[in-house]
Amino acid sequence: MLTQTVEYALRAMACLAFNPDELTPTPTLAEQTKVPASYLAKVLQMLSAGDLITGRRGVGGGYKLTRPAKEISLLDVINVVDPVERIETCPLGITGHDRLCPLHYRLDQAAKAMIDLFGSATLANLIEDAGSSIPLCDQQTATKLRVKK
Amino acid sequence: MLTQTVEYALRAMACLAFNPDELTPTPTLAEQTKVPASYLAKVLQMLSAGDLITGRRGVGGGYKLTRPAKEISLLDVINVVDPVERIETCPLGITGHDRLCPLHYRLDQAAKAMIDLFGSATLANLIEDAGSSIPLCDQQTATKLRVKK
Repeated sequence: MLTQTVEYALRAMACLAFNPDELTPTPTLAEQTKVPASYLAKVLQMLSAGDLITGRRGVGGGYKLTRPAKEISLLDVINVVDPVERIETCPLGITGHDRLCPLHYRLDQAAKAMIDLFGSATLANLIEDAGSSIPLCDQQTATKLRVKK
Repeated sequence: MLTQTVEYALRAMACLAFNPDELTPTPTLAEQTKVPASYLAKVLQMLSAGDLITGRRGVGGGYKLTRPAKEISLLDVINVVDPVERIETCPLGITGHDRLCPLHYRLDQAAKAMIDLFGSATLANLIEDAGSSIPLCDQQTATKLRVKK
């Protein structure tokens, strides 16, 4: 249901959250997130345009978060690449529909559920809750990241 | 968050649910759902391939539901065009991730919320709950449909 782009954006942001103070090289990010390099480049451009990350493209380029991981919710990330919007009026513009029809009421409830779920979790939560399964990283990388922290 | 195709498929199915016993001509469906005819044709093909509707394409063609509206959940419709799947194992295939990482745990929770929400509502519920806002129909059409029921 979530698009591939949303999934990739969340993976990239989770990885950057582990290394907030320096630029992570784009090839490292591609390797850790297992996102194809060209697709990742597009996702990073979107995240940069959305002011969630800063850095530079191309050879020797890399990115880091623009603000602390605890100030970036998963919803912030999703909204940059595929915004979740509540449905407040009839999307078909039907005259006389002064309240949502049962179909669009349910679609709105789905949007609300996504906003509640992803708006209440930050990138920092992903790291705090990690335990033995650090997001997106194999055990070897995970160990390195733990030592680094 | 839900794709355009999902939204259009749900609109088409809601409209067909109002007229379960006869073929609804495709142009009528396009008019009522406000979905562009060529896009609607593709959506109807998917719904037909998914065995939710039956009928014929082309001039003079039309469609109807294959089974009663109370036996078709919104999730059945969604799953034909853009399946919602629980995440049971690490999508990155990372060795040592014997349970989901915090990111994929939350993505799985989102999938679960969608399955619960849309799996518990049928096309018949959309009609029963309609009140003054019959799904997808302007007031004039709505009146006609009410008389027909």
